[in-house]
Amino acid sequence: MSKLEETIAGLKYDADGLIPAVCVEAHSRQVLMVAYMDAEALRKTIQTGKTHFYSRSRQKHWMKGESSGHTQDLKAIYVDCDDDTLIIEVHQHGAACHMGYYSCFFRKLTDDGRWQIIAKKVFEPREVYKKD
Amino acid sequence: MSKLEETIAGLKYDADGLIPAVCVEAHSRQVLMVAYMDAEALRKTIQTGKTHFYSRSRQKHWMKGESSGHTQDLKAIYVDCDDDTLIIEVHQHGAACHMGYYSCFFRKLTDDGRWQIIAKKVFEPREVYKKD
Repeated sequence: MSKLEETIAGLKYDADGLIPAVCVEAHSRQVLMVAYMDAEALRKTIQTGKTHFYSRSRQKHWMKGESSGHTQDLKAIYVDCDDDTLIIEVHQHGAACHMGYYSCFFRKLTDDGRWQIIAKKVFEPREVYKKD
Repeated sequence: MSKLEETIAGLKYDADGLIPAVCVEAHSRQVLMVAYMDAEALRKTIQTGKTHFYSRSRQKHWMKGESSGHTQDLKAIYVDCDDDTLIIEVHQHGAACHMGYYSCFFRKLTDDGRWQIIAKKVFEPREVYKKD
């Protein structure tokens, strides 16, 4: 087994074989999104230089940007002290959020307990995710 | 029910009633740690202004810094598009990682597939977590 395969095998995955991956823009350090990887998605991310994840709802692998073209170039990978969470440092093309925002974290809790949108849309989802 | 309670109840928790919380230092935007909150931990965090979490391994609530003194002051809370992940923006006192590093993400994947420590210890765990 290669050293990389040992390292991938050495991570602590949850009962479904997944590990959370916090995607951070390398330039701005902004957190873009949190998604889940299994060993195969992590391997593909490293091999291709484009982020790949495992969708819990759709139960399949996906490459970020496969529909929208808004791919993420891999810059670096970090692991936490418990070996159970990754930071994936990327350069984001376009925007990370399928709702049209640069970051998925576009809502902030207000003093009166509501979510307030604090960012502007970068693209219009209806335009980007067109059905043929 | 207050608006805040509605907002807390409206989040998407996993089967164990937990939601991942990415803790980010407000000043530097550095990701410090990822931990899990249930509704009660989130409520306590908002009420006290200090981050509280639920430990999956110890199966109990804990306040960040309760042993080390390295507490986190709450600055802001953000939610993602799927309502299933939080960013907790904080001011970190001391260091976030129980292993003595400022951030729990102190290891980076090298080109030859190994984890390399890329930070220096801020404190010595044996000194901070002394047993009486």
